[in-house]
Amino acid sequence: MIGFFLGRILMTEAALLALPMLVAALYGESVLPFAAAIAALAAAALLLGARKKPQRTAMYAKEGFVVVALAWIFMSAFGALPFVISGDIPNFIDAFFETVSGFTTTGASILTAVEPLSRSGLFWRSFTHWVGGMGVLVFVMAILPMNDGHGMHLMRAEVPGPSVGKLVSRMGDTAKILYGIYFALTVLLIVLLLAGGMSLFDSCIHAFGTAGTGGFSSRNLSVGAYNSAYFDILLGVFMLIFGVNFNLYYFILIKRFREAFRSEELKAYLCIVAAAVVIITVNIAHMYDSVATSLRHAFFQVSTIISTTGYATVDFNLWPTLSKTVLVLLMFVGGCAGSTGGGMKVARFVIFAKASYHDMRKMLHPNAVSIVRFEGKVLPEKAVRSVHFYLTMYVFVFAGSALLLSMEGVDPVTTFTSVAACINNIGPGLELVGPMGNYAAFSPAAKLLLSFDMLVGRLEIFPMLLLFSPSVWIRRGHRRHKKT
Amino acid sequence: MIGFFLGRILMTEAALLALPMLVAALYGESVLPFAAAIAALAAAALLLGARKKPQRTAMYAKEGFVVVALAWIFMSAFGALPFVISGDIPNFIDAFFETVSGFTTTGASILTAVEPLSRSGLFWRSFTHWVGGMGVLVFVMAILPMNDGHGMHLMRAEVPGPSVGKLVSRMGDTAKILYGIYFALTVLLIVLLLAGGMSLFDSCIHAFGTAGTGGFSSRNLSVGAYNSAYFDILLGVFMLIFGVNFNLYYFILIKRFREAFRSEELKAYLCIVAAAVVIITVNIAHMYDSVATSLRHAFFQVSTIISTTGYATVDFNLWPTLSKTVLVLLMFVGGCAGSTGGGMKVARFVIFAKASYHDMRKMLHPNAVSIVRFEGKVLPEKAVRSVHFYLTMYVFVFAGSALLLSMEGVDPVTTFTSVAACINNIGPGLELVGPMGNYAAFSPAAKLLLSFDMLVGRLEIFPMLLLFSPSVWIRRGHRRHKKT
Repeated sequence: MIGFFLGRILMTEAALLALPMLVAALYGESVLPFAAAIAALAAAALLLGARKKPQRTAMYAKEGFVVVALAWIFMSAFGALPFVISGDIPNFIDAFFETVSGFTTTGASILTAVEPLSRSGLFWRSFTHWVGGMGVLVFVMAILPMNDGHGMHLMRAEVPGPSVGKLVSRMGDTAKILYGIYFALTVLLIVLLLAGGMSLFDSCIHAFGTAGTGGFSSRNLSVGAYNSAYFDILLGVFMLIFGVNFNLYYFILIKRFREAFRSEELKAYLCIVAAAVVIITVNIAHMYDSVATSLRHAFFQVSTIISTTGYATVDFNLWPTLSKTVLVLLMFVGGCAGSTGGGMKVARFVIFAKASYHDMRKMLHPNAVSIVRFEGKVLPEKAVRSVHFYLTMYVFVFAGSALLLSMEGVDPVTTFTSVAACINNIGPGLELVGPMGNYAAFSPAAKLLLSFDMLVGRLEIFPMLLLFSPSVWIRRGHRRHKKT
Repeated sequence: MIGFFLGRILMTEAALLALPMLVAALYGESVLPFAAAIAALAAAALLLGARKKPQRTAMYAKEGFVVVALAWIFMSAFGALPFVISGDIPNFIDAFFETVSGFTTTGASILTAVEPLSRSGLFWRSFTHWVGGMGVLVFVMAILPMNDGHGMHLMRAEVPGPSVGKLVSRMGDTAKILYGIYFALTVLLIVLLLAGGMSLFDSCIHAFGTAGTGGFSSRNLSVGAYNSAYFDILLGVFMLIFGVNFNLYYFILIKRFREAFRSEELKAYLCIVAAAVVIITVNIAHMYDSVATSLRHAFFQVSTIISTTGYATVDFNLWPTLSKTVLVLLMFVGGCAGSTGGGMKVARFVIFAKASYHDMRKMLHPNAVSIVRFEGKVLPEKAVRSVHFYLTMYVFVFAGSALLLSMEGVDPVTTFTSVAACINNIGPGLELVGPMGNYAAFSPAAKLLLSFDMLVGRLEIFPMLLLFSPSVWIRRGHRRHKKT
């Protein structure tokens, strides 16, 4: 049954590859890399049994997690093929890293320069951001009919945030609504970029990167290449927009404004952004000729980091330590739950703060009755426990990755921020991997480790960790377990 | 009533100051600094009402935390007086930092050289480690009769670790036993240091620093000044010994060996030490002439960091990134619960790992019955919640401190490791605050911030945070609260 779902997902990826193939044809580039990848995906999908519906249709939570984890790994492996075949990124591990970085909307690159890439390669590279942003399985759900129970398990594993809510009674319809809003906002951004004088190709690239909060650009200097206040502000605002829970846009769409603007998470998100922009603007004021310029750069960089996009207009690696610290802390905060952004999500921090306040009161007044509320609802003990579980595992994975990556022998700041930038799906870190740097210098083993971290971050830890659990791989033990 | 306890604690400190005054007399130095401090303490104690027993004797959890937090701040402020008066450290904020660093057994110093200090000043500086190691309130409990209920509240606030167990039925007797073991081990270490040819004065200094897992030395080059394998191994072993839960020594004393060696925390602690020593020995092998030398340096540095002592025999700031990362991670682990060590404590990490494993199983098999066991006992949900609360608050305080400290404008590694070294009560960090560096370059505000972090670390966050709660300071609101 896992094979059935994986097969469907690979078929979907094959269909999506038709788009960059079209771009290749339009620009007179070879369509072979994409045709070959499509053929490989189709073959793999048939092998996995996408054709015949399996007898057993029940799906457990565990299988939902495993499907999602495997789907993302397979998609990245196959998605890397066009780069290898076209010669844009001849090394498979490099191409895999770049594709994982694309799908997870990290935007970390092993390329020292992106402008020499083929047009179709660049398009596919950025298109992975758009696909990965809202989630591949959510996409599959939106276009294919699927049992609601399955959908819930898959969605829980793929959609970021501490909890998943259905917008409408059917999961498939929820997925359609989410993708509808996502598509409409992306088209709006493309139009606004075109209006600013950007070419259609570059507009698509930057709209994909912004919508998915990914950060791949078609220019070596990223958004900084345009040196335009219009683009800086436009993209800065849109990065923030894509970092907001999409449910809120649905509420606005159906005119339930009060519900949308009452969101505690949204308020916290905007407060954090405002505070960070003010601190950085003051801190970097002496480096730029006017307050307006400082404000513009501060706003863009705060927006790009908290939304975990990773576009750059200036080399913030050269900023004072305070500004760098603010940005590094924002890396961990990330976007809102249910957005395309990465990081730990604002919602979790709000819950941490509320649960801690509750615990503190409990310590002082052991007999006082006290409950934790979030977004107007009582937060069950189980939900609080699950965000604490998330934090604990996050700390463990982070520490383990930093330890392994430090074997590379690069400086501590690069080591620490590489892991932070990958696990939070941001892209640029500091020093060697700063906005003007890249991940080319790392060994293949380190690239695989960071690829793992990107997947851990995008899928919020649990699905990837589950792949290490023996019970997933040992069929008999697994069966026995379920019976008891 | 808070005043009554504070008064008693200040009287105790006055009594303790008699010892360095004796040292001053022996070395022919002025006894005035200590006499003045004793007089000030006595005056303050009388003012606070240590003489008359208060009518109300009931003590709530909140009052226990407040007494401990205030006691440590007052003790440090008065303990700084001798340094200021003698001129050893003329600036009060510097002296306060140094005394907080002493009592919290951090061992971070603002002194660029310690050898010019007066003998009595050096003695008092290191003696604070010994007093702070096991806890001042525990000491007060050991020597003065006290209600068991009060004792429990005070002990919970002062003894490190997720939970406090009475060894014997009476709290006062438990405190006596703990101090007895502590005293005996310290004397044993002094004898062994003397046997190695160290002077009596230096033996006392290093025994105090090791027993309290503090790290102040009487030599500029710390333990490295002796360049002796005997001292390195002896102190390395004793630092590890003082990082173990003292309850285990009590079990050994009463011949319940099985109970002592069955401890899961002890096993985890020793495994972590062994793994870290092996990794670092291999990683630094090329820097030293023999494997034995690498092993000796790796063992000493691992021991000094995980026990949060902070003595140094080599400048590990010059080691490769992998070794530095291992040491930085060990900083956060720290010693065992109920030891004199700092950090987050091994017990908490064992609980994190077990609770996470439990949560993971729960996610896969929502209906499975599963409980978390630790040290042979079932861990109640409340205890798990409280370690998660600790972790959350720790992360918040750490991030906030790093943010504030980054305003100093020093490099990110210094900023990050300064906070880590202070909040975990270690002492040396990396770069500017590395084993051969010090905290002199920081501004007075930064020194106060780091003093706060040291107290937060030593008292395990909660008592210090409570001081910011309005309900502690507003008497009426407080009363009303308790009635409801």
